[in-house]
Amino acid sequence: MMQVFSETQVEEHYKMSDAIRDIEQAFGHLEDIQQAQRTVIPTGEGAKAMLYMPCVDLKQQLGTIKITSITPDNPKSGKPTTQAQIVITSLDNGEHKAIIDGSYLTRLRTGALSGIATQYMSKAEAHILGMIGTGGMAYEQFLGNMEVRPIDTVILYNRTTEKAKTFKQRILKDYPNLEVKVTEDVSELVKQSDIINCQTPSTEPVFKAGDVQPGTHINGIGSYQPSMKEIDYNIFPKADWVVVDDLEGVKDESGELIEANDEGVFTFEEIDDELKTLSLNKQTRKNDEAITVFKCVGAAYFDLAVAVGAYQKLNQE
Amino acid sequence: MMQVFSETQVEEHYKMSDAIRDIEQAFGHLEDIQQAQRTVIPTGEGAKAMLYMPCVDLKQQLGTIKITSITPDNPKSGKPTTQAQIVITSLDNGEHKAIIDGSYLTRLRTGALSGIATQYMSKAEAHILGMIGTGGMAYEQFLGNMEVRPIDTVILYNRTTEKAKTFKQRILKDYPNLEVKVTEDVSELVKQSDIINCQTPSTEPVFKAGDVQPGTHINGIGSYQPSMKEIDYNIFPKADWVVVDDLEGVKDESGELIEANDEGVFTFEEIDDELKTLSLNKQTRKNDEAITVFKCVGAAYFDLAVAVGAYQKLNQE
Repeated sequence: MMQVFSETQVEEHYKMSDAIRDIEQAFGHLEDIQQAQRTVIPTGEGAKAMLYMPCVDLKQQLGTIKITSITPDNPKSGKPTTQAQIVITSLDNGEHKAIIDGSYLTRLRTGALSGIATQYMSKAEAHILGMIGTGGMAYEQFLGNMEVRPIDTVILYNRTTEKAKTFKQRILKDYPNLEVKVTEDVSELVKQSDIINCQTPSTEPVFKAGDVQPGTHINGIGSYQPSMKEIDYNIFPKADWVVVDDLEGVKDESGELIEANDEGVFTFEEIDDELKTLSLNKQTRKNDEAITVFKCVGAAYFDLAVAVGAYQKLNQE
Repeated sequence: MMQVFSETQVEEHYKMSDAIRDIEQAFGHLEDIQQAQRTVIPTGEGAKAMLYMPCVDLKQQLGTIKITSITPDNPKSGKPTTQAQIVITSLDNGEHKAIIDGSYLTRLRTGALSGIATQYMSKAEAHILGMIGTGGMAYEQFLGNMEVRPIDTVILYNRTTEKAKTFKQRILKDYPNLEVKVTEDVSELVKQSDIINCQTPSTEPVFKAGDVQPGTHINGIGSYQPSMKEIDYNIFPKADWVVVDDLEGVKDESGELIEANDEGVFTFEEIDDELKTLSLNKQTRKNDEAITVFKCVGAAYFDLAVAVGAYQKLNQE
């Protein structure tokens, strides 16, 4: 009988450290993991759509498909824009085993990707985290950075400042010893932060490349469509190390890198690495002065890694 | 919270008459139904694979995806080769509503397609049904024909005769007044039947076109891959009316029509109609002497029609 796991169940049993471990383990056997191109069916005005991301892991003999609905009008009635479920199938005998809420898992794997990037790319002593955007994806982005660096100070910016204040209360509840500041001045945030983490759907840059100081690491996870461009693309030629989660995905979906490529500011060929290479080779930044950028758009095999990990953990406990 | 419906629950509440009605209703608003191309990921030797068939109905504001595993070795351990689940999503608010076992629904919709074809294409007084192949798909094929014609005699042929005898007992249990014969002579079956229903994975013809008598209607639902060719393609040029469930699907998947087309025996352009046209126009055979053929490979929108119908009925009762 099909198992059903709610968002709450997954959230209770499967944590950031699990997700980071499972994604790094997946990097170790990507040759066994095959994903098909995602399928998108538009269902209405704007970005309203259904998205389907199937993937199989021949080593673990498990397949997953993430089914995501995108309903841009939902926030007006207090509902989330994206809602996801992941179905898990045993390839050994073809049995469909479980359906797992994929909303937390999507946020978690995206936070884990930023965590992995921060671990390899940021300064070892990075302790000030600046967050631009405090919406639905922000909490797990915060957790991903907390997991890998001795963060003691968090600076928050959000277009609507009230929401940044609410987010401050949320993280102080869980981490009362943190220093948390809300700012309305993005330049200040950018200049003071060791790590800048952007998670907005912005169609224009949310900070100026000129404000970025030597030694800074930037994670950009907000843009996943060509129209979205939260990162000032002038940072790419200025950066010493530009890494992406999935090169093919980035070419199709990262608005800022597509624009930089189209305008000749920074071509796709100039991207230095995919995240898996850093993880497999335990590759870190060359020096403390380097500016480093990680751009993430997501891919089905990250969903597979955390869905399989959560499924296995939920069945052990 | 996601609803889960097992095969038994669906089978108890959603019947052949429901499926025929819901598929014919779908024919009436196909302009609102959009299906993406199916995705296939091979997962092992032979035909072992995962199949994904997504579809949305903008009128009913519901989306479905059928997730099918194909595990050719399964019958050796008494398990089914194909196992399917269908996820239902509300497009209004993006909520994922239910996951429904898709195995019975797939058999049922395929039986319903044969039923609809038989209703419009066979002689009104057709009462002898010959069935070639008594495997996993056969029972709902039987039901589809029973639903629309006054069948009083069923002739069964199967490569392994024992299985035909078991199938005979099954249908006599449900329909004790039927005359049911098991034969080892396909020619006899073909010559005597008003309706011939083929449901085998055979890679070569299971009957001879020369045996088909005037006035016969044939349903072929077994082949859904280019290698599968259960129907003798010489019947196509001989037939007065050749109808398919889905023209694009047939060009990719019906082995016998692909071979007939490639060899110039009968081209895709000579296919007379898609089933929806018959249903919408209440179009029937021209005379009692005509030979008619229906070839079916399946399509995501048929799965949508029955999954949505079953979901709605299960929530009413």
